[in-house]
Amino acid sequence: MNLTPATPAFLDHLKDAIPALRCDPASAGWLEEPRGKWQGQALAVLRPSCVEEVASILRLCNEARVGIIPYGGGTGLVGGQVIEAPGVLLLSLDRMHAIRDTAPEDNMIEVEAGVTLQSVQEAAAAAGRLFPLSIASEGTARIGGVLATNAGGTGVLRYGNTRDLVLGVEAVLADGTIIRDLKRLRKDNTGYDLRHLLIGSEGTLGVITAASLRLFPRPAERATAFLAVEGPADALALLHALQSQLGDVVTAFELMHRQGMDFLDEHGFQMPDPLETRPDWMVLVETSGASGTVAALEQALGSAFEEERISDAVLAQSDAQRDALWAIRETIPEGNRLTGSIMSHDISAPLSRLATFVERAGKAVRAVAPDVRINCFGHVGDGNLHYNVFPAQGRARQDYAAQTEDIQRAVHDVTHDLGGSVSAEHGVGRLKVSDLERYSDAGRLRTQRAVKAALDPRGILNPGAVLSGAPLG
Amino acid sequence: MNLTPATPAFLDHLKDAIPALRCDPASAGWLEEPRGKWQGQALAVLRPSCVEEVASILRLCNEARVGIIPYGGGTGLVGGQVIEAPGVLLLSLDRMHAIRDTAPEDNMIEVEAGVTLQSVQEAAAAAGRLFPLSIASEGTARIGGVLATNAGGTGVLRYGNTRDLVLGVEAVLADGTIIRDLKRLRKDNTGYDLRHLLIGSEGTLGVITAASLRLFPRPAERATAFLAVEGPADALALLHALQSQLGDVVTAFELMHRQGMDFLDEHGFQMPDPLETRPDWMVLVETSGASGTVAALEQALGSAFEEERISDAVLAQSDAQRDALWAIRETIPEGNRLTGSIMSHDISAPLSRLATFVERAGKAVRAVAPDVRINCFGHVGDGNLHYNVFPAQGRARQDYAAQTEDIQRAVHDVTHDLGGSVSAEHGVGRLKVSDLERYSDAGRLRTQRAVKAALDPRGILNPGAVLSGAPLG
Repeated sequence: MNLTPATPAFLDHLKDAIPALRCDPASAGWLEEPRGKWQGQALAVLRPSCVEEVASILRLCNEARVGIIPYGGGTGLVGGQVIEAPGVLLLSLDRMHAIRDTAPEDNMIEVEAGVTLQSVQEAAAAAGRLFPLSIASEGTARIGGVLATNAGGTGVLRYGNTRDLVLGVEAVLADGTIIRDLKRLRKDNTGYDLRHLLIGSEGTLGVITAASLRLFPRPAERATAFLAVEGPADALALLHALQSQLGDVVTAFELMHRQGMDFLDEHGFQMPDPLETRPDWMVLVETSGASGTVAALEQALGSAFEEERISDAVLAQSDAQRDALWAIRETIPEGNRLTGSIMSHDISAPLSRLATFVERAGKAVRAVAPDVRINCFGHVGDGNLHYNVFPAQGRARQDYAAQTEDIQRAVHDVTHDLGGSVSAEHGVGRLKVSDLERYSDAGRLRTQRAVKAALDPRGILNPGAVLSGAPLG
Repeated sequence: MNLTPATPAFLDHLKDAIPALRCDPASAGWLEEPRGKWQGQALAVLRPSCVEEVASILRLCNEARVGIIPYGGGTGLVGGQVIEAPGVLLLSLDRMHAIRDTAPEDNMIEVEAGVTLQSVQEAAAAAGRLFPLSIASEGTARIGGVLATNAGGTGVLRYGNTRDLVLGVEAVLADGTIIRDLKRLRKDNTGYDLRHLLIGSEGTLGVITAASLRLFPRPAERATAFLAVEGPADALALLHALQSQLGDVVTAFELMHRQGMDFLDEHGFQMPDPLETRPDWMVLVETSGASGTVAALEQALGSAFEEERISDAVLAQSDAQRDALWAIRETIPEGNRLTGSIMSHDISAPLSRLATFVERAGKAVRAVAPDVRINCFGHVGDGNLHYNVFPAQGRARQDYAAQTEDIQRAVHDVTHDLGGSVSAEHGVGRLKVSDLERYSDAGRLRTQRAVKAALDPRGILNPGAVLSGAPLG
């Protein structure tokens, strides 16, 4: 059944029913997408101030069959927050930005969905605790969106994905049902885990309005090193060696190809090279734990040198040096953006097959477009690589328009063949709906549709994201 | 709509349709319950050998509206595996006990549902890895049941609940749909997380037939100590101190009241006391990690002594001593069983409110039945306590028949009031269906019913467990 386009008259109806509701025009800032790939449309932005207003909005939209796009910080990379069709409403929880409670004794913080990730990190730090989730867009990304997309980032190896950091949620379903499940418990076996169903559903099953999140003790020491390795296989052998020597203190383990740094050079970034010469492959490793952590990593890297697992290394001697090493890793996406990829991929594969992935994907892509440049980097310790394909120097991404789909297909086919995922951390959004249909197990896909039909029978929530949905208009 | 009682004719129909199906009489062993609280009934036990047979069974039962009880090792404590009504079939996956793949490089093991937990632990150890889940019934409990009930145990503090150890599942829904989602990935953001919906659903949403499970490096050192503390508040202060000094290496942190050891004395167990005198409250703590772990705990306990957080301590000097300390903790449930509780509780509460819980629950219970004996023990580091109420010496549990419900209600009301859960790790089963209805948020409960209706519309899967279900017969 079709959705009904929202009209000014319907907006007036909403405002009459919810007198305190703030309703703004959907100005350009709400309709942009970080990489400029899509141009969104929307009649208006609804900005409620409390969960009850969210419930009223959804109930009325559901009755009228009006589509809603739940909107966080707008930083998603798969088009989950933009729809290129008119007649929907954006629902932003940016006015719901209270930190409701910080309880270091319970290692818990309860926040509303509109709080930015960085604000959560800062509130945790002020309470002497760590909220370990870290992504490049943390200053803008809001917790509601971070949970809705089950964001990954650089701390997953040690602390897990977003879903692993969530104790409880408050959420609203399409019909206005409020689920109040803001527990602060590590253990609660009373019925189905709706929390994990909502987390990662990208706003298609419900709108998360608040969450209770896990906090951790702040580690006494952090050790950060930048290393030259021969390639992905050696990087992973090093990871295994560090984990067996040091225990599970390895917090981040990021692989970088020199292409990323070469792009930064091209675009005039003055990033100093931390190593003597720039190798083809580099690793940024960080461990954290009790005092002695830095010395332990130094010793382990000494062994790695002797065993020829690494050929060069620098260990940060100060927080400033640590920040400088991380700045390289964190600036790489900006170099990519300025270069302009033909196609980006966010894949994961079993660790034992990652080196094979890099080799086979390279061959498959170059069979389609021999002259492209490839920047492969990412959270290799989690089995997650960003595998981005760029035009040859002097050519533009438009020159590859005829090959774009084949490039993506080649990378995704190799990924799937190796038992991997074509969306490791960015989600499905609108960009990968057909990939989900192509690669997902049939029974799993059918069950996902059954769950969607049960919780949002009219398909008003983020229509067309994750699963192909009810047509608009 | 009512379920249809299974008949011998229906069994013949199943056997005709699935020639290789093994179908046994439901002898006494299949119908018992560990504490002897309920006596189950069933027409027969179906024992398929592969996922396709499971799918055929469920499809045929669904068509005929015949109820199925998915049966693991039969060790559950809330009646999820026993039904006191005729006309249902037990579905045991005990013949599906293959360890399909052990991949230490991927820190993954893939096993069928019929494998016992202990066999998984042993296979992981043989591959030089750790599967950290540990529960008292691990020699009997099967992985299918362990996942279905999201079992807890003694390693949750460090490694999480069962659900945190599962990378992927293979499962069959009520209509015979097979979900094949046996990934071995840490990151996969392609659609709704059906894995977490099935885990902890106690066989009411689907039957888990296999799982890929996370493995961990084996820690180089383990340190185990038995401590005397003043009470729960001091125990938790000690835990916080250890975590901030040592990092997240605390693997187990178990609280015991002397009542548990007194029961063991009463029943003739010759458990030697590890401490000079038996204190009212004891803690068993274990840390594990890189070399230096034992020395670090010894030093931290020295500080705890000086700060008067503990009054006596023994640190295991050998594996035999470690086993002896753990034997005390692990024998306590047997002492409880022999004493015979009036009512057992499996509660969790925020750490900051646990000491208050112990105080308030004690007062509330004694207001109902002044002379009872209380044994309070458990995974205090997870906020999880087993709070079991026993007859006064010389009296029997039957003497308290009139107060039993009020005792449970008193404990659960205090728990709920403190933001806790009335089923921390044992699940809902049939025992706590009314508790779930009483204490659960209304929106959450309604949504759970909607999910059940979507995935098992005829209510054939474990009818009456978790949610009150379709009537039988």
